[in-house]
Amino acid sequence: MCEANVYITKNGDEELFLSSVDEVLPEGNGTWKLTSIFGEQKIINGKIASMHLVDHRIVFETTDPN
Amino acid sequence: MCEANVYITKNGDEELFLSSVDEVLPEGNGTWKLTSIFGEQKIINGKIASMHLVDHRIVFETTDPN
Repeated sequence: MCEANVYITKNGDEELFLSSVDEVLPEGNGTWKLTSIFGEQKIINGKIASMHLVDHRIVFETTDPN
Repeated sequence: MCEANVYITKNGDEELFLSSVDEVLPEGNGTWKLTSIFGEQKIINGKIASMHLVDHRIVFETTDPN
């Protein structure tokens, strides 16, 4: 399966946000809806910083203070 | 391998832009650098419309008149 793990960086720290993501859809205003291959959905607010699909990695960056 | 094919939609028409893409990196100002698993690089100008990784599909949309 060719899913990817989505990481989020905030102020230089990187953490796993959602694993095994299949679908990434823009919702507007910098918001994205992620859906994993297991049907789990999470909303992420930020910009795509990098994607390395062979490594199964998508990194978002956010300046969100929360 | 978990690469994806990148398609571009323009005025409702969809065409293959680059196949077997590994790396997608933002270059700023709506520009993205794509690198395939074969090392081919192309620059795309537009927004991500959708990603379906299990289907190996990333779709960009552009309103670029060219």
